Amino acid sequence: MAAAALVELAERLQGICVGRGLTVATAESCTGGLIAEAITSVPGSSAYFLGGVVSYADAVKAAVLGVPDSVLAAHGAVSAQVALAMASGGRERLGATLCVSTTGIAGPDGGSEAKPVGLTYVGLAWAGGTDVRKLVFAGDRAANRDSAARAALDWLVELAGGAS
Amino acid sequence: MAAAALVELAERLQGICVGRGLTVATAESCTGGLIAEAITSVPGSSAYFLGGVVSYADAVKAAVLGVPDSVLAAHGAVSAQVALAMASGGRERLGATLCVSTTGIAGPDGGSEAKPVGLTYVGLAWAGGTDVRKLVFAGDRAANRDSAARAALDWLVELAGGAS
Repeated sequence: MAAAALVELAERLQGICVGRGLTVATAESCTGGLIAEAITSVPGSSAYFLGGVVSYADAVKAAVLGVPDSVLAAHGAVSAQVALAMASGGRERLGATLCVSTTGIAGPDGGSEAKPVGLTYVGLAWAGGTDVRKLVFAGDRAANRDSAARAALDWLVELAGGAS
Repeated sequence: MAAAALVELAERLQGICVGRGLTVATAESCTGGLIAEAITSVPGSSAYFLGGVVSYADAVKAAVLGVPDSVLAAHGAVSAQVALAMASGGRERLGATLCVSTTGIAGPDGGSEAKPVGLTYVGLAWAGGTDVRKLVFAGDRAANRDSAARAALDWLVELAGGAS
């Protein structure tokens, strides 16, 4: 089960989205389902959460979320461009008001000088556009995943609660 | 984070699948990402886990997993037929050797006399066919989700470890 802080954020998100009639979808890579799990741990979440995709393999990012192969080839899976494409693809294919995405290197393996362990991109897509945030976490695999999920939920709460 | 028992099952599954060259996908409804989260909490899981779909809304079961609207209408989302269609649709769309699905009523709301809280179907699809198991859990929402995820991982381990 998701950590208490994630569940608390999910409860806030649910309150805002249900009140405003917003729906949410997720497109996760490095968080591996942690965001969807936190959201759906809250009773009544089916009132606003439509679903999510955990696109661990690049082929799933392409086939299920519609991330162009050319974008994956040019920038790599852990990139701002792929985070944006995951968020807009997820939003479109799942038909949600908002879609958040995560792609990063949770560790312990897979890091490089250019893309170290902890590097994470969080993307967000809504009716008005898309945006991406670059974050670098310094924890172990579990902590990096938790931090990425928290950043994603924080941003969803911020956007859903703002002028939309 | 997933409970220790789930992570232990995920570690066993990873050992078997990596050793045998099998890939896994998930198609979750009532477990809401818990299975994918447990699987990806293990370092190195990207070697065999391709990804998953959390299809909370019926529209996502249809659009992303290819569950026929007619099957959803005839049997309801919590049914053996939908569990089977989710597993085979997930297997095909994500291109995995094995795909497990869950659909059930985690509670506290949503139960009826015919489909009480705790009723859960777990589906499995592999090259040779599909199968489904009907289970009824008596816990609260968190316990029912955990039990369903455990049943799904148990079955994956059983099938992956058997003659395949």
